[in-house]
Amino acid sequence: MGNIVRLAVLGSTGSIGQQTLEVVRALPHRFCIVGLAAGKNISLLSQQIDEFKPRFAYYQGKKSPAYPDCQLLSAEEIAGHPEIDTVVIATPGRAGLMPTLAAVKAGKTVALANKESLVMAGEIITSQAKKNKARILPVDSEHSAIWQCLQGEKEKVSQLILTASGGPFYGYSPARLEKVSVQQALKHPSWRMGRKVTIDSATLMNKGLEVIEAHWLFNIAVDSIRVLIHPQSIVHSMVEFTDGSVKAQLSYPDMRLPIQYALTYPERLPNLQLPRLDWGNISQLTFEPADLDAFPCLKLAIEAGKKGGTYPAVLCAADEVAVDLFLSQRIKFTAIACLIEEILGHHQATAQPSLSQIIAADHWARQKVLKLAGAGL
Amino acid sequence: MGNIVRLAVLGSTGSIGQQTLEVVRALPHRFCIVGLAAGKNISLLSQQIDEFKPRFAYYQGKKSPAYPDCQLLSAEEIAGHPEIDTVVIATPGRAGLMPTLAAVKAGKTVALANKESLVMAGEIITSQAKKNKARILPVDSEHSAIWQCLQGEKEKVSQLILTASGGPFYGYSPARLEKVSVQQALKHPSWRMGRKVTIDSATLMNKGLEVIEAHWLFNIAVDSIRVLIHPQSIVHSMVEFTDGSVKAQLSYPDMRLPIQYALTYPERLPNLQLPRLDWGNISQLTFEPADLDAFPCLKLAIEAGKKGGTYPAVLCAADEVAVDLFLSQRIKFTAIACLIEEILGHHQATAQPSLSQIIAADHWARQKVLKLAGAGL
Repeated sequence: MGNIVRLAVLGSTGSIGQQTLEVVRALPHRFCIVGLAAGKNISLLSQQIDEFKPRFAYYQGKKSPAYPDCQLLSAEEIAGHPEIDTVVIATPGRAGLMPTLAAVKAGKTVALANKESLVMAGEIITSQAKKNKARILPVDSEHSAIWQCLQGEKEKVSQLILTASGGPFYGYSPARLEKVSVQQALKHPSWRMGRKVTIDSATLMNKGLEVIEAHWLFNIAVDSIRVLIHPQSIVHSMVEFTDGSVKAQLSYPDMRLPIQYALTYPERLPNLQLPRLDWGNISQLTFEPADLDAFPCLKLAIEAGKKGGTYPAVLCAADEVAVDLFLSQRIKFTAIACLIEEILGHHQATAQPSLSQIIAADHWARQKVLKLAGAGL
Repeated sequence: MGNIVRLAVLGSTGSIGQQTLEVVRALPHRFCIVGLAAGKNISLLSQQIDEFKPRFAYYQGKKSPAYPDCQLLSAEEIAGHPEIDTVVIATPGRAGLMPTLAAVKAGKTVALANKESLVMAGEIITSQAKKNKARILPVDSEHSAIWQCLQGEKEKVSQLILTASGGPFYGYSPARLEKVSVQQALKHPSWRMGRKVTIDSATLMNKGLEVIEAHWLFNIAVDSIRVLIHPQSIVHSMVEFTDGSVKAQLSYPDMRLPIQYALTYPERLPNLQLPRLDWGNISQLTFEPADLDAFPCLKLAIEAGKKGGTYPAVLCAADEVAVDLFLSQRIKFTAIACLIEEILGHHQATAQPSLSQIIAADHWARQKVLKLAGAGL
């Protein structure tokens, strides 16, 4: 048995945050929750503080819950606090960037569920991690799968194969995609996730962000990462090695497994709550190359990843705003990709950007999307 | 680049032996062939000696090819010779036992393609390997897949999942199985292999022997090994870990990959002759639990593996003779299983047998099969 890990969970009231706490409940002797940070869901955060009694908390609301033994700190302060070993970054979207950077600069073990931080600032985060001996451990099921397949392998890989469920609309015609509703888009066929990620899964932008994230996490060219549609969501990703051998990681779609793996690594612990594959009920696994024309968000993300510089930050920002607009029913589903493409086309990129240049590009893109959408695009 | 490995290939004229030499040809700077041993195919062995100029050779024939620079030794002498680093045991059937033991006792790295040696004498071979610091590296595609999946994993596994193509007759009714010809049985749908192994694949005995082999190679109970029928032969086997995560190894069915992996381990080397999975052409992978009733050889093998002692040696011996009888058209396909079951039923087993007890059980079983078959069973 390893030591007790002192955990901070940033984004504790979101889907990944809640599932992280489920893992902690299932393995109570392994973890001590020292910090919790949430956005606006104060009532759930209050319950979590009652249950886990963290020393530090952060929330984004106006009302301040009074906890005499719980000190209010910023998310960055929690992420870098010396009494914390591992920081789970489950904060959604751009809001994950600064806490991730703070954790990495403080040399923490970072269990990273937030995609945007690496997509926006991959070069800065990975070089800071190296400099400060921080470990970035993936929590996304795809990246966890790749990481698991890479265990014990010394050679450079020849290809990463990210699988994608395809989301609820895979196979839809462009005309049919025009008409999909928010409600339809929020019904993911295999994963339980937050709203933003669920829409990103429906556009396949999520997979595009994962391609860029994999590029930084595993130090591999975007060109050597491919996407396969695998609707059963059982093979979570694969690695092809230089000798042509391929390794895959499989499990039912349940985020608690990759969360637990990141938190207990390099150990694997039995957890009765985690489902086991029932081969009596898995008769086939299907695969097909992703259709980039039908799902332009994936194509845009791969292009932005190849171009690098501030392009991925602009991609992320434009997507975040466009998805918000779609969720509030102000634009159509297909307009998400159109808006992002338009913004990327207008962007004057900076190569090897500083953090402030990345943040400036992010601001510019957000304003630009709102302006374009306001103008009816 | 690692050092040049001094290789002996025992069974060099068989299917695995020839494919081993193909790997050596593809990676000429990595290997030096120091020993070759064959059975009766003197003409092919002569060509191999011409090409690779080994210092030592063994053959089982009557005529002695005269090679002034090549010393004739026994297979065991070659296996244990101090000028050899790695011994590939590609000798088929029981004939692999003594050379494997000799290699293990000499502390060699043993690339083991012969199933029978571990099935017959798993306890003796693994304990001798431990004592003499010999490494046994699997060459079978299934065991290589498991071994690849275990790289970097520290925990005990919860389950091994061996895949089986099902052979040419999977899904056949008992009545149809009665009538299959030798020619039909020799047509394996996915693998190119020797005659004995091909028939064993058609009866699923091959998978049963692999279960027992996996038990010894990976130190796991027979009860924790299951068999899945996977007709595409792309997933070569899987490992389920204690947290429920499953890893699989995939490639086209080509023995050169597991052979190369064993010979270059822990490195993986590019080899342009090895095919890469083409995901544009792999649309589905199917799986179903193996039907033990339709394929009694698999059931018999699993039972023999659980019972241990001399049962697995008797299973092997009875199978080897029964398959010979089938190949020479003296018994029906379905009689293979009947003969083996009969012999196992008559066997008075010895627990933790010595080598001589194992060999005695083997002799007894061979005589008994011939007697029963001669009596028309």
